[in-house]
Amino acid sequence: MTPATPSDSDVLIANARFYDAFTEGDFDEMADLWAEHAPVSCIHPLSPALSGRKAILETWKEILRSPPPVALRCERPTVHRLSTEVAIVTCYEGEGTHPAHLAATNVFAIEGGRWRMVHHHAGPLSRPIRPAPERPTLN
Amino acid sequence: MTPATPSDSDVLIANARFYDAFTEGDFDEMADLWAEHAPVSCIHPLSPALSGRKAILETWKEILRSPPPVALRCERPTVHRLSTEVAIVTCYEGEGTHPAHLAATNVFAIEGGRWRMVHHHAGPLSRPIRPAPERPTLN
Repeated sequence: MTPATPSDSDVLIANARFYDAFTEGDFDEMADLWAEHAPVSCIHPLSPALSGRKAILETWKEILRSPPPVALRCERPTVHRLSTEVAIVTCYEGEGTHPAHLAATNVFAIEGGRWRMVHHHAGPLSRPIRPAPERPTLN
Repeated sequence: MTPATPSDSDVLIANARFYDAFTEGDFDEMADLWAEHAPVSCIHPLSPALSGRKAILETWKEILRSPPPVALRCERPTVHRLSTEVAIVTCYEGEGTHPAHLAATNVFAIEGGRWRMVHHHAGPLSRPIRPAPERPTLN
């Protein structure tokens, strides 16, 4: 049997896992999502760039254990598929029921047959973006 | 002869071309740098995500013709090589001789045997970052 080719839907599922892990404050889930072998990098809002799994997971551990828990919504995720093994998702992030106040770049790569996060960059929007009824789109 | 494999140095050269095109207000150079076939996306500082070459180049045309010209420096570029065909560069951006005030994600993919830009995301830093004497690093 030929293994199934990971699809764009699978990219969106991996992207949703990121926001679920954030919202649930689930560090183990967050750690499992980030790639173990590929080079990883992360730019938290307003913050310097981080390189390497250890440094990045340290910041997530800190972020995820900080009360109160934040329900981080992902709005309008769009998949930009670069190759069979790498995809970018652009989306907006909002807290609870507030309009989205951050724009994000999430990059995923195939590792061990599944999409794992290799880069996250979130930064502020000058104007909040309200939720759209549209479905996820593919660029 | 086997074609040379595009190297991490070539990624840094493509990344430098982006900042040179910006500083020189050279739209043709900017347009040449962005991929023509791969899906492209762009998040300008504080702005919503853009998808597609046409929409992205329209914004660059506008940005690059706005006087006065801005000398945009790239500081501490770091290459995160995801595959033979895709690489992420994280770096900081500063204007003229001012400390860097933006953090950036630049993604490049091989198209026609050379690195072309497929994604750019720049966002503000809470504290400016001063230039470092260190050389470019590889993650």
